[in-house]
Amino acid sequence: MKQMIEEIEVRAREELFINIQPIQAAGRLTPEAMKAIIAYGDGYSTCDWCMAPFRLDKIRMPPINEFHVKLAKFVGMDQARVVPGARRGFQAVVSSLVEKGDSVIVSALAHYTEFLAVENVGGIVKEVPLNEENIVTGENTAQKIEKVKKETGKLPKLIMMDHFDYMFGNEHDIHGIAKVAKEYDVPFLANCAYSLGVMPVNGKEMGADFLVGSGHKSFASPAPSGILATTNEWAEKVFRTTQMVGDLTGRKFGIKEVEMMGCTLMGANLIAMMASFPAVHERVKHWDDEIKKANYFIDEFLKIEGNKVLSEMPRKHTLTKVDTTGSFDKIARTHKRRGFFFSDELKKRRIIGEFAGATRQWKLNTYGLTWDQIKYLAEAFQDIAKKYGMNVA
Amino acid sequence: MKQMIEEIEVRAREELFINIQPIQAAGRLTPEAMKAIIAYGDGYSTCDWCMAPFRLDKIRMPPINEFHVKLAKFVGMDQARVVPGARRGFQAVVSSLVEKGDSVIVSALAHYTEFLAVENVGGIVKEVPLNEENIVTGENTAQKIEKVKKETGKLPKLIMMDHFDYMFGNEHDIHGIAKVAKEYDVPFLANCAYSLGVMPVNGKEMGADFLVGSGHKSFASPAPSGILATTNEWAEKVFRTTQMVGDLTGRKFGIKEVEMMGCTLMGANLIAMMASFPAVHERVKHWDDEIKKANYFIDEFLKIEGNKVLSEMPRKHTLTKVDTTGSFDKIARTHKRRGFFFSDELKKRRIIGEFAGATRQWKLNTYGLTWDQIKYLAEAFQDIAKKYGMNVA
Repeated sequence: MKQMIEEIEVRAREELFINIQPIQAAGRLTPEAMKAIIAYGDGYSTCDWCMAPFRLDKIRMPPINEFHVKLAKFVGMDQARVVPGARRGFQAVVSSLVEKGDSVIVSALAHYTEFLAVENVGGIVKEVPLNEENIVTGENTAQKIEKVKKETGKLPKLIMMDHFDYMFGNEHDIHGIAKVAKEYDVPFLANCAYSLGVMPVNGKEMGADFLVGSGHKSFASPAPSGILATTNEWAEKVFRTTQMVGDLTGRKFGIKEVEMMGCTLMGANLIAMMASFPAVHERVKHWDDEIKKANYFIDEFLKIEGNKVLSEMPRKHTLTKVDTTGSFDKIARTHKRRGFFFSDELKKRRIIGEFAGATRQWKLNTYGLTWDQIKYLAEAFQDIAKKYGMNVA
Repeated sequence: MKQMIEEIEVRAREELFINIQPIQAAGRLTPEAMKAIIAYGDGYSTCDWCMAPFRLDKIRMPPINEFHVKLAKFVGMDQARVVPGARRGFQAVVSSLVEKGDSVIVSALAHYTEFLAVENVGGIVKEVPLNEENIVTGENTAQKIEKVKKETGKLPKLIMMDHFDYMFGNEHDIHGIAKVAKEYDVPFLANCAYSLGVMPVNGKEMGADFLVGSGHKSFASPAPSGILATTNEWAEKVFRTTQMVGDLTGRKFGIKEVEMMGCTLMGANLIAMMASFPAVHERVKHWDDEIKKANYFIDEFLKIEGNKVLSEMPRKHTLTKVDTTGSFDKIARTHKRRGFFFSDELKKRRIIGEFAGATRQWKLNTYGLTWDQIKYLAEAFQDIAKKYGMNVA
């Protein structure tokens, strides 16, 4: 038979390396999730016991219904659904609330999927500027709302803000923004793709109307998987059930939810989320330790002359943007392998996940590494620096 | 620790039983896909080598780009994307083509997800009646278009038709419908959720502008996974790239596609589709054997007095709707276990996947069973019939 696809390499970087890739760290499966996908890999594996009212999130065996109830409680909201990725959560909310020409307030660091969700319905994004520390504040959000109101004569239809952003891993003033949202009576979506599943997150305490999380980013789950949670008030709108009637047959489709396209996340991905849930529920309690390790590493990293950190300090997240223009990049400029010398050196030390070839501004994530690994990692960077004649304090 | 979720049963029905569940048969993983999900289970596993232009379907390692090209060729279209389920394919096309108040032509047997895709944008479904053999014809489609034109003064914006429907597994007059679509110049989406991946399907030969398939239904892949393919002409519209610009930062997001929400299906599900592709490519050539087995089984099934088949005969698909009101249901009426007596008898014989407790109209699917299993299955039904005193010819 003619070869249908090129070879698929067996992926073993999590087994063979310390992986500091910025978006992969908290999406590594738990052993329980790994076992779950083996048992539930087949297509419609979750539909064995689909009974009336015939909706996936109502299935009791396996306990999908139970999981949804506990998930809502875990995130401090009334109702939760699982979706094929955080982006599908943005899409559902925006599609329910925003119409052509409407404005949506986002951060100047908004993830591109927030842009796309708005673009898809013909809305317009309005970015809130960062303050001098690269943080979005309630104050700046209020000013932007005023500006939109003045320019368009209308309030924005939605505020979408990142709890921690994808660029710096900085914590934004979610509470302040929620307060402003309430003052202007504009619904507020907290994008917790980088927080839900790694640290305690409580939507109502935040003052959010919608909360979105990512399974493959922060909930130890396979892609695509995500979470959309909301209050009972907003659930009526965003989780509205189908009202369409067949003009000829008179067919109706019961309690299928329009924005969920009927059934929520299915199959192995859902069961993996369920299987990871006890571990995730536990691990968020130990976020402080993760922060300690991240700051330990960054402190050691900054002992290398010329190294800088672009994220806020001290670190409140394990994702950090660093700048090595004054250190490793100096070597890259004349090295025959250019920036890849740095990747080579890391790989030799069984470290992977930096953006290959990058020696100026790049990101890393230390989530889930043990103290031994953290210390090894810090020493490895210092070791490479010394090898190339840099000063290490 | 407090128990976070109820026990997740290890799913073993594919290992321990002959599974005749109507929608699960062709979504069972190949061994290659099973291995692939083990290697690529972790969250963002497919993003190790994401380079410029930073879009998932362009990644070369693993060969995701290559797969997309070959997939388009396999389905006889110019371009293909993988999506989180067939429903997300409908959603992308409808969202691109249909506006509030627009009509969309569907079948009187349309899957509910087609309804939801239309409802989500405020469109209206218009159902084409079935002929006396429960088939949608080109002629009836043309009449419905005329009716819509007369009633609304406008042509429908889209025709969505099922190649094989979910209810009877009947083959509909896709070629005739495509011809009518062309005559009226209305774009035509062929829903091949029950055909793409089990039998040869060629979108351009069909005359389709869009072709949608399901990974977890018919492509030996985990849920959610699906395929959306189209022509170069329509790709410009449905796979349009983002044009949004940040009002403050001037940020743009390159070639991210709006309807795909940026990146297409990720992770283990994508790699499983890729891993199953060679086997799927091969198995569609043997659809005739599947049909022979299905018809053999149905012929044996009809030897039981009172049994009926509601699907078209002879069978052109392995999914069949049967009626046992005149046979097994007679027993159920007085049996202390009601319809569950039938499930009990099947289970005792290691057969599973019928709708538990149903003894009137129900569906089964023989896809992928060996001849030995098919014969065993036919004998098992006859054996149960005889045990309860029914005549078997």
